[in-house]
Amino acid sequence: MKRRLVLKLGLLGGAVGLARPARAAGVHLRGTGDLGLIVERAGGSLGLIDTTARSLLTRIQGLGDLSHASIVYGRSERYGYVFGRDGGLTKVDLLEQRVAKRIVQAGNAIGGAISDDGRLIAVSNYKPGGVRVFDADTLAPVADIPAVGAGGDRSKVVGLVDAPGRRFVFTLYDAGEIWIADLSGEAPRLTKFRDIGALPYDALITGDGRHYIAGLFGEDGLVHLDLWAERPAPRRILDGYGRGETKLPVYKMPHLEGWARAGDRLLLPAVGRHELLALDATRFEEVGRIPVHGQPIFAVARPDGRQAWVNFAHPRNDTVQIVDVPSLEVVHELKPGPAVLHMEFTPRGHEVWVSVRDADRVDVYDTKSFEKRAELALRKPSGIFLTARAHRMGL
Amino acid sequence: MKRRLVLKLGLLGGAVGLARPARAAGVHLRGTGDLGLIVERAGGSLGLIDTTARSLLTRIQGLGDLSHASIVYGRSERYGYVFGRDGGLTKVDLLEQRVAKRIVQAGNAIGGAISDDGRLIAVSNYKPGGVRVFDADTLAPVADIPAVGAGGDRSKVVGLVDAPGRRFVFTLYDAGEIWIADLSGEAPRLTKFRDIGALPYDALITGDGRHYIAGLFGEDGLVHLDLWAERPAPRRILDGYGRGETKLPVYKMPHLEGWARAGDRLLLPAVGRHELLALDATRFEEVGRIPVHGQPIFAVARPDGRQAWVNFAHPRNDTVQIVDVPSLEVVHELKPGPAVLHMEFTPRGHEVWVSVRDADRVDVYDTKSFEKRAELALRKPSGIFLTARAHRMGL
Repeated sequence: MKRRLVLKLGLLGGAVGLARPARAAGVHLRGTGDLGLIVERAGGSLGLIDTTARSLLTRIQGLGDLSHASIVYGRSERYGYVFGRDGGLTKVDLLEQRVAKRIVQAGNAIGGAISDDGRLIAVSNYKPGGVRVFDADTLAPVADIPAVGAGGDRSKVVGLVDAPGRRFVFTLYDAGEIWIADLSGEAPRLTKFRDIGALPYDALITGDGRHYIAGLFGEDGLVHLDLWAERPAPRRILDGYGRGETKLPVYKMPHLEGWARAGDRLLLPAVGRHELLALDATRFEEVGRIPVHGQPIFAVARPDGRQAWVNFAHPRNDTVQIVDVPSLEVVHELKPGPAVLHMEFTPRGHEVWVSVRDADRVDVYDTKSFEKRAELALRKPSGIFLTARAHRMGL
Repeated sequence: MKRRLVLKLGLLGGAVGLARPARAAGVHLRGTGDLGLIVERAGGSLGLIDTTARSLLTRIQGLGDLSHASIVYGRSERYGYVFGRDGGLTKVDLLEQRVAKRIVQAGNAIGGAISDDGRLIAVSNYKPGGVRVFDADTLAPVADIPAVGAGGDRSKVVGLVDAPGRRFVFTLYDAGEIWIADLSGEAPRLTKFRDIGALPYDALITGDGRHYIAGLFGEDGLVHLDLWAERPAPRRILDGYGRGETKLPVYKMPHLEGWARAGDRLLLPAVGRHELLALDATRFEEVGRIPVHGQPIFAVARPDGRQAWVNFAHPRNDTVQIVDVPSLEVVHELKPGPAVLHMEFTPRGHEVWVSVRDADRVDVYDTKSFEKRAELALRKPSGIFLTARAHRMGL
């Protein structure tokens, strides 16, 4: 009898062992399409959010130096990949709410991207200058691409984005070159464009993966590369755009990824001026200017493209303005609080999440009524990244 | 001692009870961004697929009459809402792999949509003609909108889509009217456009939620409604497009939702002709025609818009052609097998899923090399719906 009981208890013990994931399942068995991560730079942590409940689910610690951090998502929307300034590449599990894996892959890094098939993570590094590519499942190294420009020196890499067909596009800051790395075969196949201009400091790719545009710190103007062209060739656009024409001190260079595509127009922050530029999205020529509250940092299009939300550089960074795209007019203004750093729309644009760093708060606004729907306490929040980015190019 | 043991067993029994979800968690604790459902019309069942593993996870039964069925997804990407021809509205749980709830909400239905905030499901009904709106969580009725046109008769409803701001747009087939239902307040607020033309049979909304376009069965041409206009007003576009100019028998009216937006162009199937029409996506004027293999049914743009994949009506429905959008030329042709019914791209376009009904098969192709990556056995598969649709307007 005793023996039988022991056996039974043994079986039940096994069941008890299983019970631990069961409890976890009660918490975490859920869809991942409405989740997101918010960077808490000061503490090296992330806030995990539920955008349906508008709630902070938990805080995930141990991410290292998160200044200028960015995040991409695997195609299942379960895993986020966090690129830290300290060269850290961290895979975060949004369902188990923990760091799944973390490596330090370089001494100083500036961003990353995920391939269109979700298999490869690429990181752009300042030190050593180049791009390193990792397996998205294991973070095992797949390829190392040193950024040695035509002059023979190693260059910092900026403006790294994904492009269709398992490709990455990036820019060599010191060398002034744009490279395309095709990872669809055994070894990376590189295409290099030399002499694109002085000190390209950032770049973007349009949502259709067609147009790659790099900003120049050393010259007035931008560089455009049409990836659909039979023989892509960099050409200068928007001469006069850039640091050189600036009449005002530049408090912060605007993020090029903040360009808003809205219908057949692009809205972009003018460097150092209290203006947005409106461009024709096909010819990349200026079609208008919009006076705004301060030096714009991000101009983010609502997903339908009808309006764009704009935030500003210090010392005018307590304000958000909303621009109506057809009329190119400011139609609304909000004062969320001190240091509005980032804005992220829900995928179909019904709400927007706004980080107000120096109030230790993230606000959620209804985009139709402009009413505030929720306030969440976060610690010095900066970038907001929703999992829906998994399904978009260039994000 | 015996008493103590019983107590222990009781506790352990509790733990055993918990162990059941644990086992389930082993199977189902996963992200939902790379899942999808495939309609198996003949058996009233759905195939649940994993687009990363390119595998069929399971079959979900008991969906009723799935002829002309369509599916939308909640914003967490956990739940699919299946609209059946028999008036059935079924909520499917992709994680628990089962029907979560099913109601029969009308006698004969033709499609549905989900509001931009994910809270409301709308169904367009033939019998009784109108739109019924349900709570997405519970499927409890929220609103009933009988489609009584200006003539006083009840009309079948077609072309139901979501629009930003908790709105739905739909078309009254018999009455020839377009209605907008705004569900953002207590009761639905209706805006009605009368006399749009004879027998509108289907409609679409562009991915930015701006342009609503209805096809006319009784006249040559289409109706366009600009929802961004201060006072939206239907206007006729593409006179000469439609049934009237047809020289060939029409085997199947093309799906308007199959219009491909690619850059600044729209590609759409010509009715009854072996042609695609290319339109300027802003002015909706014809800019070219593309000769193709048969009467086109769907012309689906790859997410980057560079190419479109086209399938055809019986008896030429064993073929798929791929059109290069900049040159408007057919650049590749595939013969997947008998009765190619539907094509769905992965969200960033690296692969495409193709249902080959009469081969009881779904094929997965690489969109760059056109190589076949996988074959899956499904029973008379028709529509393919990936969860990434949750994040898009008008899908």
